[in-house]
Amino acid sequence: MDQLTIENGVENVLLPAINDDHGGVVVELKEHMGPFIFLTRLKTSMSQWTLQGKKGVWIKLPIHLVNLVETAVKEGFCYHHAEPDYLMLVNWIPETTNTIPANASHRVGVGAIVLNDKRELLVVQEKNGIMRGRGIWKIPTGIVEEGEDISAGVIREVKEETGIDVEFVEVLAFRQWHKVFFGKSDLFFVCMMRPLSFDIQIQELEIEAAQWMPLEDFAASAQKPSLMWYIYELCKAKVDKNYSGFSPQSVTSFFSDKPSYIYLNKRDLD
Amino acid sequence: MDQLTIENGVENVLLPAINDDHGGVVVELKEHMGPFIFLTRLKTSMSQWTLQGKKGVWIKLPIHLVNLVETAVKEGFCYHHAEPDYLMLVNWIPETTNTIPANASHRVGVGAIVLNDKRELLVVQEKNGIMRGRGIWKIPTGIVEEGEDISAGVIREVKEETGIDVEFVEVLAFRQWHKVFFGKSDLFFVCMMRPLSFDIQIQELEIEAAQWMPLEDFAASAQKPSLMWYIYELCKAKVDKNYSGFSPQSVTSFFSDKPSYIYLNKRDLD
Repeated sequence: MDQLTIENGVENVLLPAINDDHGGVVVELKEHMGPFIFLTRLKTSMSQWTLQGKKGVWIKLPIHLVNLVETAVKEGFCYHHAEPDYLMLVNWIPETTNTIPANASHRVGVGAIVLNDKRELLVVQEKNGIMRGRGIWKIPTGIVEEGEDISAGVIREVKEETGIDVEFVEVLAFRQWHKVFFGKSDLFFVCMMRPLSFDIQIQELEIEAAQWMPLEDFAASAQKPSLMWYIYELCKAKVDKNYSGFSPQSVTSFFSDKPSYIYLNKRDLD
Repeated sequence: MDQLTIENGVENVLLPAINDDHGGVVVELKEHMGPFIFLTRLKTSMSQWTLQGKKGVWIKLPIHLVNLVETAVKEGFCYHHAEPDYLMLVNWIPETTNTIPANASHRVGVGAIVLNDKRELLVVQEKNGIMRGRGIWKIPTGIVEEGEDISAGVIREVKEETGIDVEFVEVLAFRQWHKVFFGKSDLFFVCMMRPLSFDIQIQELEIEAAQWMPLEDFAASAQKPSLMWYIYELCKAKVDKNYSGFSPQSVTSFFSDKPSYIYLNKRDLD
C-alpha cells in the first residue's frame, strides 16, 4: 500500500470545497495532511473544477498547515492575503480576465480634536515611531482595530493615550495617503470629540507627555498647507464658525442583519 | 564539506537585515536559498538580534522563495500579510507587549452619483456577484485600486462601466461596513460627479444594462434607512437644497514629498 492508500483508503479524493457567489470554489483545510496526499487531491480537484467551468479557486491554509504552502504554489497558486493564523491562496482557472477581488488596501487611522472650555486642545508627544524624540505636540491618534467603528476607535484611543473620556461628535475631514506601510494606504479621519473628563493620565508605553495646550500655541509651527495647519483651521471653524462635518447615522443593509453607519452632513440633509 | 560550506563558504552568516523605525529589523530575501542554510542563518541572526535587544523581526519572502516559509514558521514566525508575489512574516522577540502594526483592514469602495439636467440618475445592473439576476438598478460602484486616489477611482469606474466621462465634485457621505470579505471591512464613499458626456456604452464583462433613470423612479423601492434611501436623499439634498459634502484639498506631509488629499467641507471652512 502506498502512502495515499494508507491515509485515505481511496486513491482519488477531491478536496472539500464550497461554491462562492462568483463562480468559484473555496477550500478551507483544517485537518493535518501530508504534502503528497494534498498534491494528489489538489490535481484531481483542479481537473474536476476546470471541467465544471469554475473560475477562482481559493485555498485557506491555517498556519499549522504551513507544510502545504509550497505544494500549492508549485501547482500555480498565488498568495492573496494573510493574517497571523492563516494564508489564503488563489488560482484563476479560465482564460478570461481575472476578476479576483483585491486584498484590503487601507489602514484606517483616527485623530481626535478634543477642546475644553478654555480653548485648549488635548495634545500628546509619542514615545515611538517616526515622531520619537522630535518634541512634536500632536493630537491623539491611533489605528482602528479590525471590525471597529471609526467612532468607537477614536474614543478608545483618546482614553488609552490620555485617560480622558470623550464623546464622538463628527468627522471633520479625512485624508487619504498612499504607500504608508508595506505599499498600503492610510485613511486618516479627523474627529471632533467632546471631553467628558479633564484629568490627564498618560499611557507610559506609547506616550511621552500630554497636556491641554492653548489652541494658538498648537498652531505656532504649522505651515500651510500641512495636515497640522488644516487641523488648526478645522478647530477654529468648528469653534468660531458653524462648520458642519459628517455625523454617523445607522443604516440597514440588503445583505446583512447588522446595522452599520453612514457618515454625512446631517445639518444640510435635514 | 557539508551543504552549508558548499553554498556559502562560511558556516555562520547573518541574514541581511536593515533596522526599521521601531527598534526592529527587516530581512528582505531575494536570492534563492536552501531551507537548511536559511535555518542556520536564521537561528544565528535571531540570537544576535535578541542580544541586541531588537523587537520585531520581519522577513519578506518573494513567492519564488516559498521553500523557506515552513522553516520560518517552525522557528516561531507568524504571517503578517501577503500580496500575490510575496509573503511577510514577523516574530516579536521581547517579553514586552507586542506592538506589531496591524495589517490593512479595509477595502475602499466608491459609488458615483451622476445626474443629468433632466434630473435623471445614471444607473446600472451588474452581471456578477451578489446583485446578479436580481434586476436591481444601482449607481455605478467599484473598488479603488492600490495607491489610487478616491477621486480618481470613481472617475475610472464610471468610465469603465458606462463609458460616461465625469468630473469629481465631492464626497457626499461614506459608510463603514464590517466583515464584508474575509473578515475585512469596507469603506464606501458616495461621490457627487458631474457628467461630461451622456452616451452610454456598457462594459459587457461586468454590466448587464445601464440607463439614465428619473430620480424618483430610482427611489421607488428604497426603504428607509437603507443605503439606497440615503443615496436618494443625498441626491435631492444636493440638487434641491444646498448640501455641502467634503471636497479634496492638496495637503503636504512632514514625512513625504508627495502631496496627498484632505477631504473637508470647504464651503464651511472658507
